[in-house]
Amino acid sequence: MIRVAVVGAGLVASHYAAGLQRLKRAEIEPYGVPLAKFKVIKDYVEEEVVSAYDVDANKVGKPLSEVVKRQLEGVVPVPPDVPDFEVREGVLASSGAGLDKMFPVRGRDQKLPLKEAVEEIAKEFKSDNVNVVLNLISTEPAEPFGDEGKLAKALERGEVSAGQAYAFAAYLAAKDSGKPVAFINLIPTPLANDPAFVKLYEDANSLVLGDDGATGATPLTADLLEHLAERNRKVRYIVQFNIGGNTDFLALTIPERNLMKEKTKSSVVEDILGYDAPHYIKPTGYVEAIGDRKFVAMDIEWITFNGLVDELIVNMRINDSPALAGLAVDLVRLAAALLEKGVKGTFYDVNAFFMKNPGPKEARNKARIKAYYDMISALRELGVIVE
Amino acid sequence: MIRVAVVGAGLVASHYAAGLQRLKRAEIEPYGVPLAKFKVIKDYVEEEVVSAYDVDANKVGKPLSEVVKRQLEGVVPVPPDVPDFEVREGVLASSGAGLDKMFPVRGRDQKLPLKEAVEEIAKEFKSDNVNVVLNLISTEPAEPFGDEGKLAKALERGEVSAGQAYAFAAYLAAKDSGKPVAFINLIPTPLANDPAFVKLYEDANSLVLGDDGATGATPLTADLLEHLAERNRKVRYIVQFNIGGNTDFLALTIPERNLMKEKTKSSVVEDILGYDAPHYIKPTGYVEAIGDRKFVAMDIEWITFNGLVDELIVNMRINDSPALAGLAVDLVRLAAALLEKGVKGTFYDVNAFFMKNPGPKEARNKARIKAYYDMISALRELGVIVE
Amino acid sequence: MIRVAVVGAGLVASHYAAGLQRLKRAEIEPYGVPLAKFKVIKDYVEEEVVSAYDVDANKVGKPLSEVVKRQLEGVVPVPPDVPDFEVREGVLASSGAGLDKMFPVRGRDQKLPLKEAVEEIAKEFKSDNVNVVLNLISTEPAEPFGDEGKLAKALERGEVSAGQAYAFAAYLAAKDSGKPVAFINLIPTPLANDPAFVKLYEDANSLVLGDDGATGATPLTADLLEHLAERNRKVRYIVQFNIGGNTDFLALTIPERNLMKEKTKSSVVEDILGYDAPHYIKPTGYVEAIGDRKFVAMDIEWITFNGLVDELIVNMRINDSPALAGLAVDLVRLAAALLEKGVKGTFYDVNAFFMKNPGPKEARNKARIKAYYDMISALRELGVIVE
Amino acid sequence: MIRVAVVGAGLVASHYAAGLQRLKRAEIEPYGVPLAKFKVIKDYVEEEVVSAYDVDANKVGKPLSEVVKRQLEGVVPVPPDVPDFEVREGVLASSGAGLDKMFPVRGRDQKLPLKEAVEEIAKEFKSDNVNVVLNLISTEPAEPFGDEGKLAKALERGEVSAGQAYAFAAYLAAKDSGKPVAFINLIPTPLANDPAFVKLYEDANSLVLGDDGATGATPLTADLLEHLAERNRKVRYIVQFNIGGNTDFLALTIPERNLMKEKTKSSVVEDILGYDAPHYIKPTGYVEAIGDRKFVAMDIEWITFNGLVDELIVNMRINDSPALAGLAVDLVRLAAALLEKGVKGTFYDVNAFFMKNPGPKEARNKARIKAYYDMISALRELGVIVE
Repeated sequence: MIRVAVVGAGLVASHYAAGLQRLKRAEIEPYGVPLAKFKVIKDYVEEEVVSAYDVDANKVGKPLSEVVKRQLEGVVPVPPDVPDFEVREGVLASSGAGLDKMFPVRGRDQKLPLKEAVEEIAKEFKSDNVNVVLNLISTEPAEPFGDEGKLAKALERGEVSAGQAYAFAAYLAAKDSGKPVAFINLIPTPLANDPAFVKLYEDANSLVLGDDGATGATPLTADLLEHLAERNRKVRYIVQFNIGGNTDFLALTIPERNLMKEKTKSSVVEDILGYDAPHYIKPTGYVEAIGDRKFVAMDIEWITFNGLVDELIVNMRINDSPALAGLAVDLVRLAAALLEKGVKGTFYDVNAFFMKNPGPKEARNKARIKAYYDMISALRELGVIVE
Repeated sequence: MIRVAVVGAGLVASHYAAGLQRLKRAEIEPYGVPLAKFKVIKDYVEEEVVSAYDVDANKVGKPLSEVVKRQLEGVVPVPPDVPDFEVREGVLASSGAGLDKMFPVRGRDQKLPLKEAVEEIAKEFKSDNVNVVLNLISTEPAEPFGDEGKLAKALERGEVSAGQAYAFAAYLAAKDSGKPVAFINLIPTPLANDPAFVKLYEDANSLVLGDDGATGATPLTADLLEHLAERNRKVRYIVQFNIGGNTDFLALTIPERNLMKEKTKSSVVEDILGYDAPHYIKPTGYVEAIGDRKFVAMDIEWITFNGLVDELIVNMRINDSPALAGLAVDLVRLAAALLEKGVKGTFYDVNAFFMKNPGPKEARNKARIKAYYDMISALRELGVIVE
Repeated sequence: MIRVAVVGAGLVASHYAAGLQRLKRAEIEPYGVPLAKFKVIKDYVEEEVVSAYDVDANKVGKPLSEVVKRQLEGVVPVPPDVPDFEVREGVLASSGAGLDKMFPVRGRDQKLPLKEAVEEIAKEFKSDNVNVVLNLISTEPAEPFGDEGKLAKALERGEVSAGQAYAFAAYLAAKDSGKPVAFINLIPTPLANDPAFVKLYEDANSLVLGDDGATGATPLTADLLEHLAERNRKVRYIVQFNIGGNTDFLALTIPERNLMKEKTKSSVVEDILGYDAPHYIKPTGYVEAIGDRKFVAMDIEWITFNGLVDELIVNMRINDSPALAGLAVDLVRLAAALLEKGVKGTFYDVNAFFMKNPGPKEARNKARIKAYYDMISALRELGVIVE
Repeated sequence: MIRVAVVGAGLVASHYAAGLQRLKRAEIEPYGVPLAKFKVIKDYVEEEVVSAYDVDANKVGKPLSEVVKRQLEGVVPVPPDVPDFEVREGVLASSGAGLDKMFPVRGRDQKLPLKEAVEEIAKEFKSDNVNVVLNLISTEPAEPFGDEGKLAKALERGEVSAGQAYAFAAYLAAKDSGKPVAFINLIPTPLANDPAFVKLYEDANSLVLGDDGATGATPLTADLLEHLAERNRKVRYIVQFNIGGNTDFLALTIPERNLMKEKTKSSVVEDILGYDAPHYIKPTGYVEAIGDRKFVAMDIEWITFNGLVDELIVNMRINDSPALAGLAVDLVRLAAALLEKGVKGTFYDVNAFFMKNPGPKEARNKARIKAYYDMISALRELGVIVE
């Protein structure tokens, strides 16, 4: 069994928890789980959600099954065996700003110093025998620390983001128990891209994978750009709009919270083309009625042979949360398998395929199709994929 | 110098001839020439068009420069140094049917038996010291022969297509002169996919590359499908329409001529997904006013995690002929380099990236991004790419 | 009460029958019923399906409610009070060709001469006190007769289409009973555009509305073209593809059946622009997995001020059958109201908004937005719309 | 002759000036000039640009012909007879904020009190015998005054926008000379929507038409929404993105300047649908490489009959400036004709078709197709259109 703590009990967590049970009951095929057709030494049916954390006062203290049902009603059937333990109170840390415009917030660090709250959560991870922590909280503003000293001091002062706080808690649990923990960071906060965290995890024989799960338009954009680059077509410009009605888009309407997204998304252009083509790549707005099935529009012009101009327009409707949940299903078992094989720190070959901003810091984005084949090879070599 | 005979003096040939001169004059960047950024042992400035063949009575006997100017007027500037030798009369062979609905036709085989006409052209290739024959004639109905005996007999009876006739002429020239020739087949006629031709070329230390240059929507479709397959998304269906105003689309309106295209285009779905998703992938119609910048529309639906349905719509405006001409620029020098390295028969690693229906016959389509990296490796190993 | 006979128990009939009951039960809002917000002297809750006809052996003799359930399962909830009378055997007439490639066919005219079969159906219409016949059979090949003599002779010889046969039966019922009947023709067969039928209906104080219900892309195209025409933008070309997975698209794959559609669709260009811009407007293919929610792609280029070129690309996903069923809800009550006001023959002002090919024959297509306001005025003047 | 002063010598002014000369020389057809096919009592060949004003230091003092050539180079041919008088220095007024991030600014009101600068310009209008002032300056922040007293006081204090300042100058010229002047406001500044200006113009027997020329996506959106409303389809949401590379989009990147656009654009939804469907309709960004041919993406979902959901996606490439210039060609002659017919204040029937935010203040948006026919009727009745 792989014991999973879920941080952030939102739509992605709900799709993860409900989808996992439906997979175990064979109610659905493992579509959207990239490596489902390979034999991985850890099967996804071994995954089990053992705890969940949130700062939405409407969720804290409620059974997870109830929270999941509320969020997925009318979208997909929710099986009866979603765990019904109570969602625990999480931490707000320095990234709570503006959250209260979205829902009533509460966090342990409203009563305790942040550092103590983090230590408390670390103890819970430990006593729950958590193997993998899945970070699914809302996009938050956060900067990398670079070295562990600075991180330690910032924690002391309560100046780390919630994502950083949970990652630190997972590290503490591993350090303290002597049992490795994997932290999977599916949001933009730089963790696998922060040398401070990578070093800490290495010290604890643990693993941080990240950053920012590569769903939606970014990995497709990467592959489209690679497609053009391989034909030496000169990109005149690339434009990409995103609009949706889930919490992630709602957060964009709050000025304090919409900066991180933009940062990870744009790097892809220069990394793949080799030059910085003019671009506008941004989540653009929030319309509740769109729901979780976001609308994406892209326009790309390039110069083809003999100086003529071609154009490609892409429009997509993507179920944002299930796409990320499908990646999580694979990442959890991969993380467990990698720990078993003794991998520690972070692991670029997996990050490069699964993440928008693959760590470690100095690593570049590459076309996902290329990243995919490189990852498969690396996992075979390690004995993680066995057939 | 690489001496090139161009078969089919249409829009692609015009873009090739004019673009090549503009490249030599440094009037344009080599955009759309895939390997321009690599050091290949043959440079494209070494390419030189030394003869051209056609069956359009309005082109035969006219200076190539005049034919090129007529076709590119108002589209791109035509440099003054496009060769002005006269376009020679080609052969109609068994594939002339319906061509006369598009233009007045004439061919040597109206006066001579086809076999003699082919031998005559072989002599011309030989006396012109042609290194590479570029096949750019209109899409034609044609079936593979499988073995050389059948091919020989069919030629005797005049029952080979024009593409097959030119390919045979090139083989004869190589055989007879003892100097290898490369034949680059950018149309759907199965040549690199016909064991008969591959065997003949092998015997003559020569090379046939093909079939059907991978421009337009097909290679993009291949990469999009690979993108979905790697995420284990289940494709519900894929639809792709193409409409344009060039001769290739005009030919579609002639029932005798529109079958080949469909055949090569659909195989991509099963080859890449591993299952035959419902699809409709066809050149759809002809509207002269659209010109050479064809319009492509695609719609794909797939099942994502937890059983939900996503949708991707792609619309493109693609300059059809320059795209193919850009590939030709690279293929000519690669073919010359491969001959120099002693490669004979056909060469899958190059075909897999450049062709819609990569030969040899038993080979499968693969995602172009993957094919690209495999090709680069293979070419480096052979010493064709040196840096 | 308005007593309705439905001819063709397919998907549109199912949406009509089920949707009508849901409207009566106030389970749905009258979205897609154009005049729902106006006070019309006949309310749609007065409509009642009293009989249904089909030539699919799997439907004939089955309760309508069962046929409806089978077709709408998993699409919309079917209320329990859809009528459960048995679907009656219809006529194949001259338009049965190819139908058997879609389903097992049976028709009264396999046993009886067509004329007698028509008379039999006329008697049924009469004894059922049918007020309105709704023609929803599959698209069929058919030509107008022009005068009643020719029509009579053709019927004698069994050489009328099924749509023409039902229209004649409805006329006979009206003539014979002295009670007016309305025939609403929602398929391309020329009835309101055939002076022969218009004259017959006039003689029987009855009304034929048609032809071909204006759903999907055609009315939108009409409004887009009007939009361009009013700004004096010169359309360079217009392309429109349609693909779907319902019976209507399946019929296109049968060569004998795909001609009518093309005819009605293209006239819109010249009617509205005043010149025949190059166009390709056609239902393009059939992919079952697309289902009833068809995919439409359009591309329009025009010349704007100072000679520059603009482009508009439209992609749609349209539920084909409910759209037509929504129009039927309005047309049935309008037809009943018009009969009450003494209107006979045909009625252009309603046809011009609701039909792709509005009768009478000499009438032109006009922008739907204009047609809408003209229709509202005409209906107010007649006292059909009262508020 | 109709003597025209152009305020704002940017891209629209350049297309207007160059296109007008090309029309007079019959080098182009009057495409994009809506009423070109009607006989209007004033012909557009009577229009003549007699002066131009700007605050870009790179334009002030330069011959108009040179400014036009610089801006249209490589886009359209510029005829030799574009007037070569010098562009005059305009006013910055209260709306100069941020302009200096786009170009070096200079204005008369840097040296003079604004009121005196306005009076100076009024004198120039008068001595130039200007009949029509065409307002084409950059989008600016501005609020309506409501009554003339407030406007007068604001001018005293220098607290009016540049658009308001020019409109006041035109009024002064008319008042002073006793000869009516028309002011055509093609930017969002509320002038025809400000009772203060409408009243002033009425007093001077003059005419203000506005506000904000209806090009691009807004009038198309209006017609699409009307199309849906007439079928009683319930709009679930509407999303519209715009991105371009001209000065108008550049101005959006300057926070002080991007508010006005949003305001006029959104009102269209409720005005036409009758309810405020969830929407996001905004100019979204600036990418210089896109140039003047902006990219627009729209996504609309609606509920159709029986509760099912349809979707419409629109993508456009629109040459922004020529579209507006084409409207200007018509508006100038219409304004002159309306003045001749004694119309004063503002004129809703023309505004409703040509403007995004048609004045007077209390007027609503209506579908453009409807507005078009209403305008034609009104102009015929007045004798402005005579055939």
